[in-house]
Formats: sequence, C-alpha cells, structure tokens
Amino acid sequence: MNKALSAQQRAELLTDEMTVEEQASQLRYDAPAVERLGISAYNWWNEGLHGLARSGISTVFPQAIALAAMFDTNETENAAAVTAEEARAKYQAYSAHGDTDIYKGLTLWAPNINIFRDPRWGRGHETYGEDPFLTAENGKAYVKGLQGNGDTLKTAACAKHFAVHSGPEALRHEFNAEVSAKDMEETYLPAFEALVKEAHVEGVMGAYNRVNGEPACASRFLMSKLNEWGFDGYFVSDCWAVQDFHQHHMVTANELESAALALKTGCDINCGCTYVKLLAALEAGLIEKEDIRRACVNVMRTRIRLGMFDEQPEKIPFEKVACAEHKAAALRCAEKSMVLLENNGLLPLDESKLKTIAVIGPNADSTAALEGNYCGRSDSYVTFLRGIQQRFNGRVIFAEGCHLYKDRISGLADHGDRYAEAVAAAEAADVVILCVGLDATIEGEEGDTGNEFSSGDKTDLRLPESQRLLIEKVSAAGKPTVLVCAAGSSVNTECSPDALIHAWYPGEAGGTALAEIIFGDISPSGKLPVTFYKTADELPEFTDYSMKDRTYRYTKKNVLYPFGYGMTYSHTECTSLEYSGGKAIVTIKNSGERACEDVIELYIKDGCENAVPNAALCGFMRIKLDAGEERTFELPVPEKAFTAVSNDGERKIFSDTFTLYAGVCQPDELSERLSGTKCASVNIMP
Amino acid sequence: MNKALSAQQRAELLTDEMTVEEQASQLRYDAPAVERLGISAYNWWNEGLHGLARSGISTVFPQAIALAAMFDTNETENAAAVTAEEARAKYQAYSAHGDTDIYKGLTLWAPNINIFRDPRWGRGHETYGEDPFLTAENGKAYVKGLQGNGDTLKTAACAKHFAVHSGPEALRHEFNAEVSAKDMEETYLPAFEALVKEAHVEGVMGAYNRVNGEPACASRFLMSKLNEWGFDGYFVSDCWAVQDFHQHHMVTANELESAALALKTGCDINCGCTYVKLLAALEAGLIEKEDIRRACVNVMRTRIRLGMFDEQPEKIPFEKVACAEHKAAALRCAEKSMVLLENNGLLPLDESKLKTIAVIGPNADSTAALEGNYCGRSDSYVTFLRGIQQRFNGRVIFAEGCHLYKDRISGLADHGDRYAEAVAAAEAADVVILCVGLDATIEGEEGDTGNEFSSGDKTDLRLPESQRLLIEKVSAAGKPTVLVCAAGSSVNTECSPDALIHAWYPGEAGGTALAEIIFGDISPSGKLPVTFYKTADELPEFTDYSMKDRTYRYTKKNVLYPFGYGMTYSHTECTSLEYSGGKAIVTIKNSGERACEDVIELYIKDGCENAVPNAALCGFMRIKLDAGEERTFELPVPEKAFTAVSNDGERKIFSDTFTLYAGVCQPDELSERLSGTKCASVNIMP
Repeated sequence: MNKALSAQQRAELLTDEMTVEEQASQLRYDAPAVERLGISAYNWWNEGLHGLARSGISTVFPQAIALAAMFDTNETENAAAVTAEEARAKYQAYSAHGDTDIYKGLTLWAPNINIFRDPRWGRGHETYGEDPFLTAENGKAYVKGLQGNGDTLKTAACAKHFAVHSGPEALRHEFNAEVSAKDMEETYLPAFEALVKEAHVEGVMGAYNRVNGEPACASRFLMSKLNEWGFDGYFVSDCWAVQDFHQHHMVTANELESAALALKTGCDINCGCTYVKLLAALEAGLIEKEDIRRACVNVMRTRIRLGMFDEQPEKIPFEKVACAEHKAAALRCAEKSMVLLENNGLLPLDESKLKTIAVIGPNADSTAALEGNYCGRSDSYVTFLRGIQQRFNGRVIFAEGCHLYKDRISGLADHGDRYAEAVAAAEAADVVILCVGLDATIEGEEGDTGNEFSSGDKTDLRLPESQRLLIEKVSAAGKPTVLVCAAGSSVNTECSPDALIHAWYPGEAGGTALAEIIFGDISPSGKLPVTFYKTADELPEFTDYSMKDRTYRYTKKNVLYPFGYGMTYSHTECTSLEYSGGKAIVTIKNSGERACEDVIELYIKDGCENAVPNAALCGFMRIKLDAGEERTFELPVPEKAFTAVSNDGERKIFSDTFTLYAGVCQPDELSERLSGTKCASVNIMP
Repeated sequence: MNKALSAQQRAELLTDEMTVEEQASQLRYDAPAVERLGISAYNWWNEGLHGLARSGISTVFPQAIALAAMFDTNETENAAAVTAEEARAKYQAYSAHGDTDIYKGLTLWAPNINIFRDPRWGRGHETYGEDPFLTAENGKAYVKGLQGNGDTLKTAACAKHFAVHSGPEALRHEFNAEVSAKDMEETYLPAFEALVKEAHVEGVMGAYNRVNGEPACASRFLMSKLNEWGFDGYFVSDCWAVQDFHQHHMVTANELESAALALKTGCDINCGCTYVKLLAALEAGLIEKEDIRRACVNVMRTRIRLGMFDEQPEKIPFEKVACAEHKAAALRCAEKSMVLLENNGLLPLDESKLKTIAVIGPNADSTAALEGNYCGRSDSYVTFLRGIQQRFNGRVIFAEGCHLYKDRISGLADHGDRYAEAVAAAEAADVVILCVGLDATIEGEEGDTGNEFSSGDKTDLRLPESQRLLIEKVSAAGKPTVLVCAAGSSVNTECSPDALIHAWYPGEAGGTALAEIIFGDISPSGKLPVTFYKTADELPEFTDYSMKDRTYRYTKKNVLYPFGYGMTYSHTECTSLEYSGGKAIVTIKNSGERACEDVIELYIKDGCENAVPNAALCGFMRIKLDAGEERTFELPVPEKAFTAVSNDGERKIFSDTFTLYAGVCQPDELSERLSGTKCASVNIMP
C-alpha cells in the first residue's frame, strides 16, 4: 500500500477492494481475516485501564481512581506509556505465534472517563473521580501515553462510556439517564470533548444505558457532539449493548433493527454479536451499502494508523513486559496515590520503639485488594502484609480477622470465627495495622460480583458488617492502630483510629508503598479525587443524574473528607498568589520538618448565576519541597475556567471578575481546618 | 479434682456426677458446657495433618505424603511438635476470649495412616504412602510429636480412618470394602496397631465405608482389634458417617438405630448430628444408660489427660505461632521431601551462565500447590516463582501457561489462550522451569473438589490435558527445561525433560526449597513413598481392595519410578552390609563430588509361601555424608520384619533364613539402574 496517502485514503482504497460481505465482517469485534487482501484476523477487544489487562502477565498499576489521586498527569501518562509498551510487546509475540484472540490486540478500551457522580457506583474506581477538569487532564494524559507521539499509534486508546454513565449497575441494560442541558455541558461531556479535541483519542465506546431517551450507542445527540468535536476515530458499542436495544430498552423490535439503528447512527464496531445481522438488515432495506462502507473505512483507518498493514516497527523485546523499569513506575504511582486522612502523630512509626506489629484484616494479605478490576496479573504482588514484613525487622503477626463481607471464614463455624485470633494478635503487638476495605467482588461491575450487594454497587458507604465488628473488637485491645482502607470510593470507617490511610487499589507494589509510608521512608502525598461523604442517607437518589447536591462543586453538606484533601508528614502552605498573563504564580513554603511532595490545587469561583455553586478546580501541580524550602510555581489557568453554562446548555464567559484560590486543599472551612492550612485568594480579571 | 487419681478414675467420678442427659450431650462433637461441674463447652473437631489446620494463621508444613518422602521420622516428629505447640498456643488464646468453636480445640484429627493402595485415590496425599512399615514409623512419630511426653497430653492425636479406607471418594458413604484376612493383617491394620500399642495414640476415627459388611464406625471386628491392642482413648466417627448407616449403607432403619449401633459398638464421639437421638434411643430401649456412661467416661478421660480440668500449664506466647523457628522447620521438611526423578546434568543450574529464566505453568505461582488439603493459612507463602525470583539475580519471566485443568483462562477466549505467552517466555529465556501438577481442587476429598474428575479421585495418572498441551508447546521452544511437578501422588508426565523434580505439596516454604535445590545450595534427598506407575490402565479395579498387583511389595509391573527412588547431586553406595545382634551394620560411601543427604533403605525378603512376593522395607535412616566420606551406620531390624501372614490372617515367623538388602534404593533391577547403584545383600537368620 502507498504510505504517501493519508490513512483515510488508504482505508477507502482498502475498503473498496472488499465485497460488502467482507466489509460487514470487519465491523464485528472479532473480525475475521480477508486473506486475499492481506488483512489478518483481528480481535478489537483488549483492555488496559491501569496496565495491560486480562492478557497474562503485565505490570499492574494502581486502579484509575488512584492514578487520579496522584494529581500528577506526567505519572499518569507514563503509566499509560508502560501499558502501551507491554501491549505492543505482547501483540508482537502473540502475532508471531498466530494468536489473534481476544485481549491480544492494540485497541485498548481505556480510559474510563465517566464522572464518578455517586459514591455508590460500583465502577467508580475505574474513573478519575468526580471532577470534570481532573478527569479530562488525567484522561488526556492517559490517551497520550497509550497512543504515543509517533507516526504510528503505539496503541489506540478508547474514551468510554460515552456518555452519562454511572450506575446503577443492576439497571444498566434498561436504564434511561435523564440529564439537563446544563449538566450535560457542565459535567458529563467536557472530558470527552477534551479527549477528542485535545488528545485525539482514536476510539470512543458508547454506554449501555439510554441518555434522554436514546440508547447511548445510537444517540443522534451524542454522535452530533463527536462530529462537532471533529472525532475521526472508530466508535464501538459496549459489549452486547446493541442487543439491549430490543431486549431491554425496547427502542427496536429485533436484532436487525438494532444493528441497523446502531450502524446508521455511527456505531462502527459491535462488541457483541448483533452485527452478524448486518447483511440481513441490508437485504431488508434497513441500511444501505454505504452505511457499511463508511463504518468499514473508519475501522480500517484505525488499523492503518496502528501500522497493521505496514512493516512492523522495531520489535519490543518480550522481556520488557513487567521489567524492573515498569515495576518501578507502578511503585511510584502507588507511593503518590495513597491518601493520609487521619494522623494523631502515630505515623510515621518509630521503629526503634517497636518489637512486634500485628497486621490484621481481610485485605492485609489480599491480592484482590491490590488489583481493583480490569487488571492484569502481576508476577510479584506485594500485599500490605508482605510489604510490612519486608520492611520491618521485628516480628510481624498476621491475622485475617474476618471475611471481606461474610460473617465467618469457615462454613462450619459460628459467625465471627476469626475475631479471637485477631484480638490475640493485637494484644501481642505494640502497634496494629488494620487492613480493611473492599475489593472488586463487592465494588465492581454488573455480572462480576458475587455478594449481597446489588450487582456491584454499594448499598451504603460503610464497611461490611464483618469488618465493622472486627474494628470494634480489635480497637478494644487498646493498641495504637493504623487503619488502612483499600477501596475505590468514598468509605466511612465510622471509627477513630490513630491514623487512617486510604490506599485505593494500589496495584502490584501496594504493600511496598504502604510500608514506605508507614515507616516514613516517604511522606504520603495523595489527594482525594472524590468527596468522602458521611452517609449515603443524605445523598440524592442513585438514579437521579442531576448534579444538584453532588460532588464538591455543588455541595458542602454531608462531607467527611473533602475532595482534594490529603495530609503529608510535613506542613506546606501558600505564602503568595498572583495572577498574570493567564497564569497563577503561586509560592509554597514547606514550613514543616521533613521533605515532602504535595499538590498545589488551584480553584476558581465565578459569581454569576450560571456558575457552579462552589469554587471549582482549574489547575494543579505536584511539587516537591525540602524542609523549610519555599518556591514559586506557575500554573496556567485554562480559558475554559472562566466559562459557565446556562440552563439551556450554552457555555461562555458570563462574568468579568473571578476569585482564584491556591493552596494544598480546597478553599473551604472544612478542608482548611483538616489540612491545617489556608488557601490564598486573589480577585482576577481574565 | 484430685490429681492423685488416675485419669480413668477421675473420668468416672466426673461422669457419675452428670445426669444421663448431660452424659449424652458430651458425646456430641460440639459438646455443650456443664457449668455446674466446671465443664466448659468443647468442640472436638480440630485438624492438624501437616501443621495446625483451618484455624487461622499457622505454620504450613509439606503435606503428609511429602513428610513420608523425607524418610526422616525425627523431622516428622518435629513437624508434629510444632503443630501441637501452635494448637495449644491458639487454644489458650481462643479460650481466653471465650471462643470454643470448631477448629479451636486440642483434639487434632491427624494423622491419616490409611495405606495409599491405589494412586487414583484423591486423599492419598494425606497419607504416608503405600508401605505399612513407612506408614507406621511416620504415624508413630507424628503422634509422639502431637502428644508430647509430658504428664499432660500436649494435644491428642487421632489415627484415621480406621480401617481399610482408600476410595473411591464418590462411593465412600455406601461402599463395602472387601478385604481378605491376609491383606487385613499384612497391609491394612499394622500401622493402626503400631500407633495404638507403641505410640499410645489418644484417638481413633472410624472410616465412612463398610469393611467386610460392617460400617467401619460400628464394626465389631475392628473394635475387637482395638481392644486386643489395649486402646484406651476415645473413638470418633468420621463426620456424618453414622448417618450413612441408615441413609446409604442401609444397615439400620433410622437415626435412632444408627446412634444405638454406633454407641454400643464403641463409637464414643459422633462427628455429625446423629447422637442428638441418643436419649430417644435410650427411651426406645435400643441402648442402656451404661452404654452412655461408658462412652462419656472415655471422652472425659481424654479431656482430663489434656489437662482441661487442671491448672493450665505455662502459657505459650501467641507469637510462637508461625514464628521463625517453626518456619525453619517447615523449610527443612520441604528441602528433604522433594524428589529428583530425572537429571541429565542440567541440575544444579550454573548461575554464571544464565541471564534469563522463564518460570512457566499453572502451579508456578500457586499457593494451592503448596498447601495440599487439611492445611492452615501461612503468613508467608513462597511459591515456586517467588522462590526462584528471590534466589536468582537475573531476569525471571513468568507465564501462567494454562489453567490447571480447564482449556482456557478467560471464558471469552479460545482454548489455549495462554500458550503463546508461555512459548514467548520460553523463547526469551536461557532455561525454563515448567511448574505443572495438581492441587486439592482436582486431587482431594469428596465434596471439596470442583472439576471434571470424579469426586476428588483421579481418573488416570496423567496431567490434565491443558498441561499436557502446555508441555508439548513449551518443549517445542527447545530450551533446557526443568519440569517441576507438584502433586500428592503418582503422576506420569509423559515427557522427557532435562530434569524432573516431584515437589509434592511442599508447604509454605516450597519455593525456597525448590530454588535451593535448583541452584544447588542443597542436594535433593527425598525418596518416593509410593510407586509411580506408568499408566492406570494396568492397575487393578479401583474398588478392588486386594493387594494383588498393588504397591512395590506385590508388583514390579507397570512401574515408572519405583518406591524408595530419588536421586541426589552426588553418588552414594553401600560398600558393606552385615547383620548382628538384631541390627544391620551398613557402610555407605559418598563417592560423588558433593556433600549430600541420602537415605539408607533396608529391605527384607522372606522366601516362604506366606510372605509378600517382593522384598519389603524394614528399616531406613536419613544420613549426611561429605564428598568422599564413608561411614558405618546401625539400623535395627524389627522383629516383625521376620513375620509373614498366612491366608487365614495369622502372623508369625515361618522361615528361618531371610535375605537382607541395604542401599539407597530398592533391591530390584529398575531401582538399581535408575539410581546407578546396587544394593548390598546378606543372608541372615534372625
């Protein structure tokens, strides 16, 4: 093929050499070979949300929500670049052995840039949190890392689930998300727009649910947005979502109509099996050949951009997969993502005073608690227990304490059959590290979960009862206690430990990072990318997609720990803030006694009636300061920060003055009290 | 209570203070408290087959079959002593917190001294193998370790399953094992007799099946044997075995009759719930008060011997559980138990020539492959992969290769979805360590297993098809390959690797031991406690309990690797054998170039027609020799070695001359050829 032509031209030429049957076959996610044209079989379905997933061994990074908690898009981009490197190394190895099966291609269906609207959503941990700006910044970085900046895409990223998708999982195949024009523009679309316009994401995946009546995989409204943004990649349905059209959404009568509706609206690839009916739909006059041709051009264009019909780029040695450099990156992400929520001075632990540590809890030695979902398999998991064993020279006593959510470990035993062991362990120790939380079996995707909770969503924000009782019983031993919570969402542990670390699902090196933090080798530096609420009782209905009373931009009620919050072992404060030439000039002083990393958070408040009620994040920067060091940093304030959205969905600049805030937390009373520091503010004119 | 009285007297006094209802309640495995008499609730069910089991964290030793492979009863005894130490430490801690639930008491239902009659039996790995002498020696050592030698029993051991019990698992609740008088005395009873008479085992558990028509838990024949041997401990039914009497064996009409039959025949404790009918059986005239009283005296006697009604002995610190000393013992057992079956010189690996090792296979990073069944949970599993990672300074590439037995890892993928990764890993490496085998999900107990195999038994002696294909594909990469097979029984891997290590289920430190062996830090020294057959096709029917053509004592056909076989990295040979004063005087020379441990095996051949066809093990001793060292050892030849058993089951000395053999293998052509050494022999008169 002539490489001087554009990918579009090459795709058209290639498509036009195919019969309509061959064209239609290429729209299946498991596309067969067209041997006479040198087109090999290709399975479009691969995953790489936080490391290459489901494809054997790979480097397992912290879950996406943890990547967001780093507030460090360079590190997010690097995690994605590692993911892409491993995906291509494996693609080359698999291809060399003739294996073109699922989870072996170059089209990764990541990132998930849905807004984590409600803390009960089981898949929230796949996202970058509740804030559109933070989501867009991390999403762009992840796409950049996956796609690279060469002439050939390293891998093709895919922004999902387009759009307005955040539970309930149990209803996802039939649910209609009703969204105002204002919320659509203000909250649900910005990250998608940014990924298409700024990061040139190659793929977009539609959601399962309907959006204002239209199935998201065949929504004229949503497709018009993609066109408006200049999207020129491929569109794929969520898996078996097109079949939902007639089976659950009842917007079509049968498979033929569903296939036709999806194709004509702009869905190129069908993850599922409905597009095997495309030829029948053509015969029935529901679609035209040109519909098939157009979609086929789109998908061949992506394969061309991935270099599948050119000389392969240089071979990546198979040993790059899970190599030391990649593992180091996963560890850095874990180190940067854990959030210190409470500390009465117990942390960092003084090793010289400790002989025995009890590590207790169902997540203490759990690899599931490291993984989250949509993950690979590591060749070297370091659980919290193992991390502490490797780091601490004294005696470590382990007790599981309880099942993650069942009331007993052994089916023949009475309930609470491991509490006595846990309490004995605590009594024998100088300090207790109590590892609680969730994992993807009780916080995950519909169909993946196997517990009392509804289809992966959480019924409330508490720990399961087995763990609440464990905390109560172990606390009664009266030993200094560090509570470590592994979870991908807002959890209220309902207790007062000496220290509380929210560890997310921190990936293969989670235990190493935890131990480094606990023993003070590094200072914690993660920040919450979601609001931690006190209780689910005061949340809006889970099915209500209005942003009213949701997330830090709209509410300050019911807040346990605020968005953006997270402590270090030192004390940083903003000593000066100016605005000039589109940039915030922020001076930060580390007035504490230790070097630390921290995050400058920039918020903007727009007084106009169309603006969101509270100050909103518009910039952030991860910084590193020695003890006593004071430095000045420049953070650009994006133009979009000055816009607001009217009730009819128009986004523009309404005001002429704004208040800009800078600090290491949100500019509100609770955040400043918890952080022990005040944000600086300045009134500005853009 | 007056401690000057015997346990029997104290038990009688205590029992006679109870009402008949109270006495009957004490015969349940979950006996309630009798508070007015200071008798606390007690759950008789606890497990400790190879380390304390099912009771939270403990030291996980190699499975019993591996302990037998050490041919080292001191080490077996120490493993049991550690088990007892941890059981009592936990019993004290649990009791202090009022927890008297299942798996928390001092009555451990171990060891399993059934004869591993057929290699298909799923529970064979719980035993000490196929030889009555080796079984008895290890069984006695284990009982001694569990019970200790103080005035108070440290824990109470339990010999199970009495008697004649070795599958099929699927039929165990209804099966009638038909056994000749000769096989009974020659093979099935000797270990039980030894444990009762020589080790004073405190408990005996009946089997599920019938034996020559009688349910084993209510067999007059078997009970008469216990009386003959002077058994004075407690007898417990296997769990829910008494209910089998009327539900499956059909020897009684209902629960009342089953309870009555068991109690009257001598079953003191009912694991199950049939004895809740004892009072109804009493009322119906099926039993008498004296039957209940007698059983109650027996069980209270055991509790008295355990010190439950006396001042508690000194408190064992909770930190003793899984302490460094105990872990070291588990590692030693793993080191001594692994059996080197093939080696063309590849092992030990020469590190200086290696940059990259591929560790491949479903058992490479599996904790299940370390555990076997009836195990505790370790706080520090070292899988084969991790052991090699920790020991080797170069790059280790891991690939799972395939599921243990399913044809794919991912449900959405084609079959064989991890083969390409495995082959790529092999291609990238200098050496392949291929870790195959079984685990307790496909080799285990009825009810515990979840695969295509029948109720835990093996259908044949091959690896599952997924692994046979993996071996084929990885072998095709042509790299030097060490095959490591984790399994509890005879497996024919049907391939020719450069080296083959049978690792059993080697416990928590299995990976450390494997790495030490692979890199030559230690020489392998385990020996097979069972015959490895070529194929199941030539075995007798699984349901046939005749010993004809079974085990090394009766057959030399169909043998892949013989009983007693196992190589070292050196070469030891017997240079002299004499017999004097009831002892074999054996001189062994290490004529190889490395220090090694090896095992002197002593076999005896009796020419009379009543004797077993082949030479039988009658002594063994683990020894350690430096390179070039030659030493003389004395091994007692037990009197029983000179006896044979007539067809009517009479055991006595028939012959006046015997041939005694000594060496590091069996005295037969195959064993000597494989071992590259010849046994010495001498004709003797006892």
